[in-house]
Amino acid sequence: MAELLDVQHRDPGSRARTAVLRLAHGEVRTPAFVPLATKGVVKGIEPHEVAALGYDMVLGNTFHLFLTPGHELVAEQGGLHEFMRWSGPIITDSGGFQVFSMGHGTVADEIKGRAPTGADRAGAILSIEEEGVRFRSYIDGGERFMAPETSMEVQAALGSDVALAFDECTPFHVDRDYTERSTERTHRWLERCLAWQDAHGRADQVFYAISQGGVHEDLRRGSTRVVAGSRAHGVAIGGSLGAEKAQMYEVVGWATDELERVAPGKPRHLLGIGEIDDLVRGVELGIDTFDCAMPTRLGRHGMAIVPDPERRWRVDLTKGRWKHAREPIMDDCPCPACAGGYSRAYLHYLFGARELTALRLVTLHNLSYVARLMADLRAAVAAGTLAEAAAAVRAGASPRA
Amino acid sequence: MAELLDVQHRDPGSRARTAVLRLAHGEVRTPAFVPLATKGVVKGIEPHEVAALGYDMVLGNTFHLFLTPGHELVAEQGGLHEFMRWSGPIITDSGGFQVFSMGHGTVADEIKGRAPTGADRAGAILSIEEEGVRFRSYIDGGERFMAPETSMEVQAALGSDVALAFDECTPFHVDRDYTERSTERTHRWLERCLAWQDAHGRADQVFYAISQGGVHEDLRRGSTRVVAGSRAHGVAIGGSLGAEKAQMYEVVGWATDELERVAPGKPRHLLGIGEIDDLVRGVELGIDTFDCAMPTRLGRHGMAIVPDPERRWRVDLTKGRWKHAREPIMDDCPCPACAGGYSRAYLHYLFGARELTALRLVTLHNLSYVARLMADLRAAVAAGTLAEAAAAVRAGASPRA
Repeated sequence: MAELLDVQHRDPGSRARTAVLRLAHGEVRTPAFVPLATKGVVKGIEPHEVAALGYDMVLGNTFHLFLTPGHELVAEQGGLHEFMRWSGPIITDSGGFQVFSMGHGTVADEIKGRAPTGADRAGAILSIEEEGVRFRSYIDGGERFMAPETSMEVQAALGSDVALAFDECTPFHVDRDYTERSTERTHRWLERCLAWQDAHGRADQVFYAISQGGVHEDLRRGSTRVVAGSRAHGVAIGGSLGAEKAQMYEVVGWATDELERVAPGKPRHLLGIGEIDDLVRGVELGIDTFDCAMPTRLGRHGMAIVPDPERRWRVDLTKGRWKHAREPIMDDCPCPACAGGYSRAYLHYLFGARELTALRLVTLHNLSYVARLMADLRAAVAAGTLAEAAAAVRAGASPRA
Repeated sequence: MAELLDVQHRDPGSRARTAVLRLAHGEVRTPAFVPLATKGVVKGIEPHEVAALGYDMVLGNTFHLFLTPGHELVAEQGGLHEFMRWSGPIITDSGGFQVFSMGHGTVADEIKGRAPTGADRAGAILSIEEEGVRFRSYIDGGERFMAPETSMEVQAALGSDVALAFDECTPFHVDRDYTERSTERTHRWLERCLAWQDAHGRADQVFYAISQGGVHEDLRRGSTRVVAGSRAHGVAIGGSLGAEKAQMYEVVGWATDELERVAPGKPRHLLGIGEIDDLVRGVELGIDTFDCAMPTRLGRHGMAIVPDPERRWRVDLTKGRWKHAREPIMDDCPCPACAGGYSRAYLHYLFGARELTALRLVTLHNLSYVARLMADLRAAVAAGTLAEAAAAVRAGASPRA
């Protein structure tokens, strides 16, 4: 069997690496951003458009697809790839984050850009026990139960290329004691996930464990060692990563430091992180894949990604200052919105008129921006120029790809 | 100057004809359906996609664009073509229908598929006088005034290829006396539109008068003779066309009968009609161009056009019966939704999940269906086989183009 992660280049000045992640439905060129197809669709965008933007993989969500249309229906329809017409690799989040989001209102969500949606909040946790989590569906109000085994079963039915362990995503505001107990439970749940995989796992699906431990160095390093040393094929870094970016980078650094030692060849996914500077730093810290709602969610709210570090790489097209602006979102941008010649004035108007096309165009722009950034970073690692490339991005350079 | 309407084929068994309508921004192959870009965008669809489906012209709306973003802004941005990035011909409705829709709740709207939208209804007519109509904006609640000259000025600023006369769209439920007086006022308003065109008209814009007269044969024939005999370059058939399809066909027949006599070479547009059987009959009655919200509005509500005359050529994908349906909307349909392999089950699920992609895919299918139908009808007229083609459509044949 070919290696899961075929590392091709290493940056001498950081933990960054390029690789080809070989999955059942194709290869992912890493480091890579993974757009969200939470409910089985990248909101407003067709799969062939996602691929044309340069993406190799998308992320589906176990929790949402479990509630509707249901994993049995997706399986009956030939699996998630066939159902949503995406022929490339799919990673599925385990549902842990969404289930626990119904109970936690978190600072971490905000910093991670993973704030629960209105739909998530409408549900409610009924009980968290060793066996699993009982909650109320935001779809029909019915009572549902999700255990590690449920999550594995759902992900197997969806047929994703990468399944994630069912974990408790510990929020930022809980104390060390809660975090420690929660992390230990996540480790016990990992064993149950692995046992399910041993008994029922699909040959065409790989399985990633999730590192928890919050922002406590010993817990985070300890959790990372535990999950990296398990039989899981890869590791995702989840849970609370801190109240601010500097702390998040430190926490991720602890995790990848342990991964370098314990399991250097296993692929590493960073959950829910995707702002421009975070992607650059994540690559330097040795992350292979990232997912985040940010590019698509910002796009739906009229926020376009632009090379402007002082404004968090964002411009808000709904602001009145763009009413007369004839320029595109970005000059020399090859995305469908900019190359299509749509002006900021027109996009501003369309957002005001609540026209769907506005959401779609800015989402396309944002996804194009992030895809090109990741291609730049891959090229820089391959060329041994990551330090210069990262500095240029931080100074406000446009993607070159 | 080349002829505006270059008639190429005539059907020996009906008034149907094929032609090339030569406008400032290009040619329209007729008979043609004209998709609505009411607010300067075909909802959810980009202009290059509209063109790729086979459409030559779109319709913008004077009333909506007058209120937001305003014709001055559109003019400042280089005109509607540049603003919305549609380089082909544009026809603009005059705003008469929308202004009067705020006052009338009509049976005619229903039969014509031109029911006022929620936005239209939120406004209110303050007064209708000989000078013009005063109303309250649904955007900002402010008082606005629209007269024939206003409509002409707005349409000139938008820079459409075809401007329509400002008329009162008489509803079905008013009496003959009201219809007669309204039609006479529409004729006086036509003179004012023509006077404005004489003084300020753009060389790159042609002007269509609108036939009113409701469902009264003498009024409808009389109005058609008046407007067809005017200096207007073309004629649109508007107002109430009846409470049911048979009556609508009769009324349109009176109008095109008069047009054949008075102005056989002028292009004819039928306002707000676009169901499948109506398009076939309209072509037989000698209509050159049609506009209607139907294909796009149905699409946004989950209704896909299919070759099923017994169900008004519609299937409602939001119904539970499609939950497990693996087939596409239509077999052998080349539209992006069907050729893309999306199943009815997936579209059903996406509508339930309120995902934008659902609206977009079914809109694309519906527009593709209608474009191909019109191409079939043009080919049939050219080949002298319209009677057979029309019978096949009525019997449930799929478009062949």
